[in-house]
Amino acid sequence: MAAQTRRNTLVDIAAEAGVSVSAVSKVLNGRTDVAADTRTRIAGLLRQHGYRVASRLGFGVVDLLIGSLYSPWAEELLRGTVEAANEAETSVVVTTVHSAGEFTGWLDQATARGTAGALCVLHLPGSRELQRLAAARIPLVVIDPPTEPGDDIRSVGTTNWQGAMTATRHLIELGHRRIAIISGPAGLWASRARLDGYRAAMQAAGLVPDETLIRREAFTVAAGRSQTRELLSLPQPPTAVVAGNDSQAFGVLQAVREHGLRVPDDLSVVGFDDVPVASWAAPPLTTVRQPLAAMAATALRMLRSDPATAAGEPRHIELATMLIVRESTAPPPT
Amino acid sequence: MAAQTRRNTLVDIAAEAGVSVSAVSKVLNGRTDVAADTRTRIAGLLRQHGYRVASRLGFGVVDLLIGSLYSPWAEELLRGTVEAANEAETSVVVTTVHSAGEFTGWLDQATARGTAGALCVLHLPGSRELQRLAAARIPLVVIDPPTEPGDDIRSVGTTNWQGAMTATRHLIELGHRRIAIISGPAGLWASRARLDGYRAAMQAAGLVPDETLIRREAFTVAAGRSQTRELLSLPQPPTAVVAGNDSQAFGVLQAVREHGLRVPDDLSVVGFDDVPVASWAAPPLTTVRQPLAAMAATALRMLRSDPATAAGEPRHIELATMLIVRESTAPPPT
Repeated sequence: MAAQTRRNTLVDIAAEAGVSVSAVSKVLNGRTDVAADTRTRIAGLLRQHGYRVASRLGFGVVDLLIGSLYSPWAEELLRGTVEAANEAETSVVVTTVHSAGEFTGWLDQATARGTAGALCVLHLPGSRELQRLAAARIPLVVIDPPTEPGDDIRSVGTTNWQGAMTATRHLIELGHRRIAIISGPAGLWASRARLDGYRAAMQAAGLVPDETLIRREAFTVAAGRSQTRELLSLPQPPTAVVAGNDSQAFGVLQAVREHGLRVPDDLSVVGFDDVPVASWAAPPLTTVRQPLAAMAATALRMLRSDPATAAGEPRHIELATMLIVRESTAPPPT
Repeated sequence: MAAQTRRNTLVDIAAEAGVSVSAVSKVLNGRTDVAADTRTRIAGLLRQHGYRVASRLGFGVVDLLIGSLYSPWAEELLRGTVEAANEAETSVVVTTVHSAGEFTGWLDQATARGTAGALCVLHLPGSRELQRLAAARIPLVVIDPPTEPGDDIRSVGTTNWQGAMTATRHLIELGHRRIAIISGPAGLWASRARLDGYRAAMQAAGLVPDETLIRREAFTVAAGRSQTRELLSLPQPPTAVVAGNDSQAFGVLQAVREHGLRVPDDLSVVGFDDVPVASWAAPPLTTVRQPLAAMAATALRMLRSDPATAAGEPRHIELATMLIVRESTAPPPT
C-alpha cells in the first residue's frame, strides 16, 4: 500500500515534469545520467513531495577542518582549498575544530554523510582521533603540521628553514649586521626551522648573532609590537628585524612609528607568509611568501591518491618559499 | 540473488562490528538512532565493502556562495557563517561563484545532494538564477546585496548611511572642517548610502562639502592610495578623510607616509568595515564596524525560517554599525 502510494506519487511527478517515471527514479537515487536541467526540475518536485533526494556526496565532497579562522593565513589556505576543489567539481565543507568534542561531532556528521577525506589546518589530530578516522576509512592530510608529524600522517608544509635563511641573507646583502629575529612559539615546528635558517645565514656570513636580538613570542601583532619596543630600547638596537610572520611584522611597523622612527630608513623588517594584506602595510612588506594556495591544492591531490597504492610516495612534501621584496627593507642608516 | 549477496554482506558486517543486522541497515539508510561510535564503525565497514552510506545532508548542510574570497571582508562573513552553522550542527559547503556557468555547476551539485539553502555574498543572482533556485526549492538569502534587491529576495545588510554619518560627525566633533570622502563604485548600493550619510552629517553641522573633496573609486588599497595622493596635492588639502572601506584606508596611510606626513597628526582617516586587520595598521584604524559575523548568523536564521510562514517577516534586515575609535583620528593640525 505504501509502495503503491509512492509509485503513484512518482507517476504524478513524472507527469508534472514531462519525463518518464524511470527518469524520476534515477534522480531519486542520485544517478547523474539525466540532463542537469531536468535533474534540477525533478529533484525540486521530489523535495516538494517530501522525498529526500539521494546524495552524490561521498566522492564529491572533502572536509576542511580548521583550528581557527581568525587569521589571514588560515583564510588563504581556505581560499586555496575551495578554489582547487571547485575546479575539480568537488564541494568543500568547512568546519572549525577547537576541541576534541568538536572533532567528534564533525566525525559523526562526516561519517553519516560520507566524505572523500579531510584536510586539517592548525590542528594535528591525536592518536585517538587518528584511530577514529582510520576506523571510518576517512583519509587525512595535514597542512603545515604544528609539530613534526609521525610516519602515519601525510602532510604538506613549506620550506621554513630556507625561507628564513633567504630573508636573513637579503638583509646581510643590504649591509645589515645587527639583525634581530622574532620567532614564533618555541614548540612549533615552523618556528624552530625558521630560527635555524636565520642562524645558518648569519653563520655563512661570518656573523655571530647577539643572543639579546633573538626573541620568541606568539605569532601576533601585539607580540611583534612589544618585542620591537624592547629591541629599540636596547643600548645597541638592531638595524633590521626578521619577523616570525606577517602579523608580527605589522606589529614591528606599529612600534617603529611609536618611536617616531621610519621603516625602512631607520629599521628594515622582513615578514613571513605573504598573506594578501602584506602589501597593504605602510610601507608594503618585504616578506617570505608561503605558496599557501598551492599547498592547499597539493594536499587535496594527496588526499585523492589512494593510500594503498601511494605507498611509495613521500609522506611529507614541502613547497618552496620565495622572497618578495617590497618597500620595508633598505640599507642600514649610515 | 543480488539481494541475497547483499544480505550476506550485511550479516558479515554486523558480525564484524558486533551489532545486529538491523543496526547495520539503519546506518546504511542514514538513520541516526544508532550510537555515534557504533555508527562510525559500521559506516567504515560498509564503505570498505563498497557501500555508499546514505547521506543525512539536505537538512544538515547550507551552501555559502561567494563571489570572491580575496578580501578580509568576505572572509569575515565566511567565518561568521561557519561558526554560526557549526553551533547549529550544520555543515557549510563553500563555493566560489564568479560566473553564470559556475552558478549552474553549483546548482547541479546542490540539487543532486540536497541543501537547506544558499547564502550569497558578493553575488546577486539574476532572474534566471532565481527561477532555477525556486524550481529546485532551494531557499536563498543574500548578504550585503550589491544593488537594492527586489521584493522577491531576502537579504541582510548593515546601516551604511548611519555608519558614514557617524564617522563624519566624529571628525567634525574633533574640529575638522575640510573633510574628504573616498566612496566606493557609484553603482553600489552601499556606496550611495555611505556618501549620503557623509552629506547628511556635513549638512547637519552647517558645512557645505567642497565637491573636489568627494571621490569615488574601487574598494581597493591602490584606489585609496591614488586618491589620497591627489587630495594631498590640492591647493587646499583636506585635514581628514572618510574612506569607503578599510582597504582604501590602508591606501590612505600609504600615501600619507609617501608624502612624509603622519596620521593622525597631519591627516585623520576613518575606515569602514572593521575587518580584523584594521587593528594591524600603523596607526591602528579608527573605523566603522560592520557586524559581519552577526550578519552571517542572521542570514542563516532567515534561511531556516519557512518562507511560506515567514510571509509577515521583513525581506531586508539591516544590522547597526558602530564607530570604533582607535588611533588614526585626532584634532586637525593647528
